[in-house]
Amino acid sequence: MNAARFIAGDWGTSHLRLALCDGAGHVLAETTGPGAAACRGRFAEVYAQSIAPWSAHGPLPALLCGMAGSRQGWIEAPYLRCPADLEYLASCSIATDAQGPRIMPGLTCTNPLGVADFLRGEETQLVGALALDARLRAGRQLVVLPGTHSKWVQLDDGQVRQFQTVVTGEVYAALHAHGVLVTQAAPINDGPLDGAFMHGVERARTTSPASLLALLFECRSRRLAGELPEGEESTFLSGLLICHEIAHGLASVETPARICLVGASALARRYACALSVFGVEAYGLDGNHAAVAGLAAAWRQLHGEP
Amino acid sequence: MNAARFIAGDWGTSHLRLALCDGAGHVLAETTGPGAAACRGRFAEVYAQSIAPWSAHGPLPALLCGMAGSRQGWIEAPYLRCPADLEYLASCSIATDAQGPRIMPGLTCTNPLGVADFLRGEETQLVGALALDARLRAGRQLVVLPGTHSKWVQLDDGQVRQFQTVVTGEVYAALHAHGVLVTQAAPINDGPLDGAFMHGVERARTTSPASLLALLFECRSRRLAGELPEGEESTFLSGLLICHEIAHGLASVETPARICLVGASALARRYACALSVFGVEAYGLDGNHAAVAGLAAAWRQLHGEP
Repeated sequence: MNAARFIAGDWGTSHLRLALCDGAGHVLAETTGPGAAACRGRFAEVYAQSIAPWSAHGPLPALLCGMAGSRQGWIEAPYLRCPADLEYLASCSIATDAQGPRIMPGLTCTNPLGVADFLRGEETQLVGALALDARLRAGRQLVVLPGTHSKWVQLDDGQVRQFQTVVTGEVYAALHAHGVLVTQAAPINDGPLDGAFMHGVERARTTSPASLLALLFECRSRRLAGELPEGEESTFLSGLLICHEIAHGLASVETPARICLVGASALARRYACALSVFGVEAYGLDGNHAAVAGLAAAWRQLHGEP
Repeated sequence: MNAARFIAGDWGTSHLRLALCDGAGHVLAETTGPGAAACRGRFAEVYAQSIAPWSAHGPLPALLCGMAGSRQGWIEAPYLRCPADLEYLASCSIATDAQGPRIMPGLTCTNPLGVADFLRGEETQLVGALALDARLRAGRQLVVLPGTHSKWVQLDDGQVRQFQTVVTGEVYAALHAHGVLVTQAAPINDGPLDGAFMHGVERARTTSPASLLALLFECRSRRLAGELPEGEESTFLSGLLICHEIAHGLASVETPARICLVGASALARRYACALSVFGVEAYGLDGNHAAVAGLAAAWRQLHGEP
């Protein structure tokens, strides 16, 4: 077993994921902890508890990304303005204290709607995506990170030129948690992408995007009409929303031959499936894998390693 | 005091509102009870308890509208197909049993998106709107009933020609109940419609409707950028969503010189304000008042009174 050299951490709103890494960025051990939303004022304490099982390796430097760097986080790490070179991000990480972890910065830009936009955590997944797939380092590329707040990121030769946030996942989750449109939640898993999802995609693709708030009622009205089996409104809703996001995203940016999707595999598969209806090819990189790869690459950058 | 002649009831998902009426439909007394969602399997019992204080008036006939007539309600009242004559609705009400209340039918149509659409409860508010405002009985009229599921209803000489449901209120409420876009809920009240609401309206009016899921992120990103004071994202969100609904509604139907809004006064005021930005005049009728007026008119129709 290689020697542990540093700890890589992705501290999101809901989860903390920590990886013990060797000098090459290989993961030797992993652990999880509570998300940033549950750790206000006690980040140092939660971090110390979480890495306690690794104390035999001695004190190790650590690099974190995600909401631990937000205003309500451990310490506020700045948002770097785009265009931002992904190789330069690590040097803008900030230290929690002399011994504690460093935290990666977020990114800000003026998005295609002309408004200040923000991301935090995804910048490190982007660093990882470039480390995992050299093709992304050259030329104009489009990376989509689907999730609660999807990010559509335009890259130019390894620089983040611009990005845009689309709240597809938050609307999807909110309509599950509240109201009558979705009576049963169907998990987003690796099961077949059958009728209801593609039906939702087709409805959104062939209907004016101005109709979205009317289209969403079809989750209920098609059930009342007996056209949508109970339990499938969730999958139909997913198709409607993902397609609406994609139609907007493709209209907002120059679309390259292939889009890279960085995220959970089952969700990325839905995006790839909907993108194919628009004639756009997409391939996926696992989001957690990209985060660790990004932290490892950033750690090498910090220490002047190639 | 005039003699009590019948009981008018609006049994929605969340509330039961009962009114003791005289022969002219004037309200002599009112009471409230639990909504249909909380009464499964015990509608008769809840109804009997609710009207018990009025027992001195002897057994009275009753007419109800709303979710008490849904599949999960007291007894299922059919959806009448449009075009539907509002004067004819009462004759399609059905009896819960020989002594019990009658329940008004709902309406169904093929909406402008080509899909089966449904309403229940609003048909009675429409009957009431025509009773309260004779101008609505002639020619082509547009009545908008804003709410959890807004209804845009086209009338031709007192007939419901077509309608469309828009789930603006449900999305608004869901984004309050879940997620990070809205951190503080601001009540929809009669306070001044200040900057944040009109700012939301303007953003939605001047941005492609395809951008809605991206625009919604501005509730958060404008707060991060210091452009939206904390606590105002709720009002900004309301402006975004109501404007999106209105832009869609006005594009879907022929717009008459004036639109009638039937609903809660504070919400109707927001719609009127946003409609004015589109150069459309609107006036309001109180939704609860319209429901009682509709039940009274329907009761007179049932009994062959003018």
